[in-house]
Amino acid sequence: MTETLPSTHAATTVRTWLSEFSAALASSDTTAAAALFTGDCFWRDLIAFTWNIRTFEGRGEITGMLDETLASVQPGGWKITDGEEPADAGGVIEAWIDFETAAGRGHGHLRLRDGQCWTLLTTLYELTGYEEAKGPRRPMGAEHGAIRDRATWLENREHESHELGVTEQPYVLIVGGGQAGIGLAARLRQLSVPTIVIDKRSRPGDQWRSRYKSLSLHDPVWYDHMPYLKFPDNWPVFSPKDKIADWLESYTKIMELNYWPGTEAKSATYSEATGEWTVNVERDGQPMVLRPAQLVLATGMSGRPGIPSFPGMDVFRGDQHHSSAHPGPDAYRGKRCVVIGSNNSAFDICGALWENGADVTMVQRSSTHIVRSATLMDIGLSALYSEQAVAGGMTTEKADMTFASIPYRIMHVFQIPLYEQMHERDKDFYDRLEKAGFDHDWGEDGSGLFMKYLRRGSGYYIDVGAADLVANGDVKLVRGQVDHLTEDAVVLEDGTGLPADLVVYATGYTSMNGWAAELISQEVADKVGKCWGLGSGTAKDPGPWEGEERNMWKPTRQQALWFHGGNLHQSRHYSLYLALQLKARQAGIPTPVYGLQAVHHLG
Amino acid sequence: MTETLPSTHAATTVRTWLSEFSAALASSDTTAAAALFTGDCFWRDLIAFTWNIRTFEGRGEITGMLDETLASVQPGGWKITDGEEPADAGGVIEAWIDFETAAGRGHGHLRLRDGQCWTLLTTLYELTGYEEAKGPRRPMGAEHGAIRDRATWLENREHESHELGVTEQPYVLIVGGGQAGIGLAARLRQLSVPTIVIDKRSRPGDQWRSRYKSLSLHDPVWYDHMPYLKFPDNWPVFSPKDKIADWLESYTKIMELNYWPGTEAKSATYSEATGEWTVNVERDGQPMVLRPAQLVLATGMSGRPGIPSFPGMDVFRGDQHHSSAHPGPDAYRGKRCVVIGSNNSAFDICGALWENGADVTMVQRSSTHIVRSATLMDIGLSALYSEQAVAGGMTTEKADMTFASIPYRIMHVFQIPLYEQMHERDKDFYDRLEKAGFDHDWGEDGSGLFMKYLRRGSGYYIDVGAADLVANGDVKLVRGQVDHLTEDAVVLEDGTGLPADLVVYATGYTSMNGWAAELISQEVADKVGKCWGLGSGTAKDPGPWEGEERNMWKPTRQQALWFHGGNLHQSRHYSLYLALQLKARQAGIPTPVYGLQAVHHLG
Repeated sequence: MTETLPSTHAATTVRTWLSEFSAALASSDTTAAAALFTGDCFWRDLIAFTWNIRTFEGRGEITGMLDETLASVQPGGWKITDGEEPADAGGVIEAWIDFETAAGRGHGHLRLRDGQCWTLLTTLYELTGYEEAKGPRRPMGAEHGAIRDRATWLENREHESHELGVTEQPYVLIVGGGQAGIGLAARLRQLSVPTIVIDKRSRPGDQWRSRYKSLSLHDPVWYDHMPYLKFPDNWPVFSPKDKIADWLESYTKIMELNYWPGTEAKSATYSEATGEWTVNVERDGQPMVLRPAQLVLATGMSGRPGIPSFPGMDVFRGDQHHSSAHPGPDAYRGKRCVVIGSNNSAFDICGALWENGADVTMVQRSSTHIVRSATLMDIGLSALYSEQAVAGGMTTEKADMTFASIPYRIMHVFQIPLYEQMHERDKDFYDRLEKAGFDHDWGEDGSGLFMKYLRRGSGYYIDVGAADLVANGDVKLVRGQVDHLTEDAVVLEDGTGLPADLVVYATGYTSMNGWAAELISQEVADKVGKCWGLGSGTAKDPGPWEGEERNMWKPTRQQALWFHGGNLHQSRHYSLYLALQLKARQAGIPTPVYGLQAVHHLG
Repeated sequence: MTETLPSTHAATTVRTWLSEFSAALASSDTTAAAALFTGDCFWRDLIAFTWNIRTFEGRGEITGMLDETLASVQPGGWKITDGEEPADAGGVIEAWIDFETAAGRGHGHLRLRDGQCWTLLTTLYELTGYEEAKGPRRPMGAEHGAIRDRATWLENREHESHELGVTEQPYVLIVGGGQAGIGLAARLRQLSVPTIVIDKRSRPGDQWRSRYKSLSLHDPVWYDHMPYLKFPDNWPVFSPKDKIADWLESYTKIMELNYWPGTEAKSATYSEATGEWTVNVERDGQPMVLRPAQLVLATGMSGRPGIPSFPGMDVFRGDQHHSSAHPGPDAYRGKRCVVIGSNNSAFDICGALWENGADVTMVQRSSTHIVRSATLMDIGLSALYSEQAVAGGMTTEKADMTFASIPYRIMHVFQIPLYEQMHERDKDFYDRLEKAGFDHDWGEDGSGLFMKYLRRGSGYYIDVGAADLVANGDVKLVRGQVDHLTEDAVVLEDGTGLPADLVVYATGYTSMNGWAAELISQEVADKVGKCWGLGSGTAKDPGPWEGEERNMWKPTRQQALWFHGGNLHQSRHYSLYLALQLKARQAGIPTPVYGLQAVHHLG
């Protein structure tokens, strides 16, 4: 994350450490292995040792993990990654490493301080014997030779899409065909895991097309690549929603996914006896039953609208809808619009309504963190995800791994100074916002946007222009809690009445295990517990500390039930580990899960 | 093309040469400039000096060109390309170079022998002031700020596609929406040139979908990338036709092309007075008039079926069609099939018919060159277009430029030894073919497949398995000329009768200027003359030597009429120069054409 210089000393130090570490593991001396770490060490493992996503803190947790996993994992072949020179960055030596396990090949990252390991990242990226058909292993496409009654690519493809889910059951069913679901499906196809993606909307990409018309991605293009197929060089920095929708639609076709549009999952039950799910779906209105071995919910980390229930909503005569159902501003020119909420969607919607000549009031119910988009790109993302990073040789894969190498426990320490810089750079902006009465925060510990996202997935706005409308009064700002609605107004607890032709509830989304409750049962949802959040003990992310996103991309307390989602970066990167976990189970590779998470919160 | 070693001596020699060359050009001393070349030198220019595609041979032609072009081109800034170390390969020093002209930025390649230039390639890749919006210049996508009544990306896109060709005229009309047409259209869009692509078929990609069902690309994936959007790493080596069709369909959408399917060009006339074409089209059956300034025919280098006219074709009672209309083998199980021709399509069709249980006879009318696909990949293409080349840092762009750096006049010298290697490697195969009575050749000078392609675009088969069927007699081989057809047979000149339920005319295609005759007039077709071919004086490529593909990607004798096509490699690479020629004209940049070709052949 900081400027580094190549150093032979660094390489020697890393080689020495790897050699000692390797020897300790080979002799199953887990105490000796742990002694190679600093007292404040972290070992983050993405399925290589644990078949789980876990971060271990301190030598004791490391010993505990190794004692249970070493015999089956059988790690070896530790070495510095070819072509990646270790570097000494201000007393911390960083290195990319490779290793092998009984199941496959691993890649990792190492930070040494005074010859001891401060942070270690281990990831499994490939299963031995199940390597993906790409690059030198790509398929031939045309089978050469003369073969009686051969089927063409098209015939095979049509056969598969007609039969899968009808005469043959998929191994994996993915509910939700947004970028997360289809990216995972692409990886599973590469691993030859029969998979169906279902989505209730009528076309791939409709997850985006159906949103308010001014929506664009708030993350820049370098952060947003899908697995296997990168956006071309002429792709805009911020994808407009309909353009990303078209891309995702093409992606499902290019990746040859078995994507069932217009298909809704109605109910699902798991049988431990048969080891399969019974999922009732409605495809184009017709009931069908699917019996996958694995069920993945990819309906959006923030996919389930959290619609509030205020007295009087039933008597209000204007339009009212959740932000996820907002059609855009066209019908509201000259109308009085009240938007309840002050995060991303609220600002986007307020901005577009104002631009189309509506009279707009934002109701701020709690404090919000705002960062200007250009500032966030320059200070927050440019080292890993930017045109300069690409020009400097930073690949998407390396950026993802670099990001993954920082333990969540200390990530805020890296983040706080960045947000101090942002505050400094945009001081005038924040002063104006404050003067306008806006309740602004920087996160409880000043660690800003990304930590808020990781902890609670809400509470911020990446400003693309609408914050100025609030600061200068073009969009009216009111702070307070909604008490009730009347026929034609929103009334706050302090008695303020806000006359309204339209009320938009930009009130966020609920935990993904709510989907499990709806589809499977409340019992299963409770057994699984809350999704997302780290247990940081900050607002909307209650402790105890858990150290990884709850229930995401890893085994849950409900066998064969998985949650997949997050932003485009996370969906891209973690879909690899989820796909490998599913493939290992399909292939019958032992996957003993170490440290299955406890459930501390129900939702 | 051979193993090279970096050398400081090489860099010094190149710098010295560039400095002397630059000084001679700066002082307009064209004799001094030409004296820096060897006696047997070549200078190939792709629009940088000539606004034409020309190769100059010997000092005299170079002096002649420079005398006329220097004043307007104003070349300067000659230097070795950053990061590209010149290398000495067996006495020939090779270097990548950059330069600038009055119009834009150039890139090139240099070969020095004994300090003198043996081959020089100069290309223009960018017009100053009209740089493409990509990489660091990519669009923002979302315009930040609060802007009253802004239009979304979708609204803008829909407005454009509704209005262009209706209320606003395109600057360029491209007839033909295959890979060539849409690749060019993508480049023109990047250059903000309003462009419409029309194609008579109902969906993008139907150019491939409509072909015989066993068809796959005969060139491997590394050779086939489209501009801007590379195939992903999991793309097959040889794209099945329906898969490449889907890719092209996605491409038109991703690149935001104005593609009119179901639209046929019926007639076109050019007015020198108004500087525009009047093109009558039928769009979804409705007549419309388009008035583009420039007309590009991209209907396929081999797009116009050459259907023979044999006596008795009218009385034959079975199925008969040109190879381009062959549906595939499904309807011909157990039937007697006669395929007339012995090139790519003939072999593909014979192979698929045999695989589906038909009784197949191939009629060979003249000698054919065959290379086995794997051999061609290993020996003919792997240095530039292969997984190993990619792993070694060879980009598609660099491979294209390397290929372009070899003058056509001496290309066969590089090719002959490769085909000698191929002959050696597959000796048994060729022996078996000969024993079966197949009339095989290696090109008149033994230079093999690619030279045949460049000279005549026909006369070969890239074997993916069907040649063995001929060698072992599974597909019957008959040599001779067709005399006539009867109700149920093909009769050869020697009286041999071939009973037939199906006759396929795999008889090739005619020159692209035939399209001009059909669409515009015979007069214009004759004014333009034959397309394709180098004037090598070999079969189907009559002299005199012209040195570049006739009429392809460059100005023709008909103002504002252009021909675009070739294989995927050529379409990709030369579309850049054609796009820049069109953009320069649209932008009013002077484009004095040097050395407009003479017409030696009518078609």
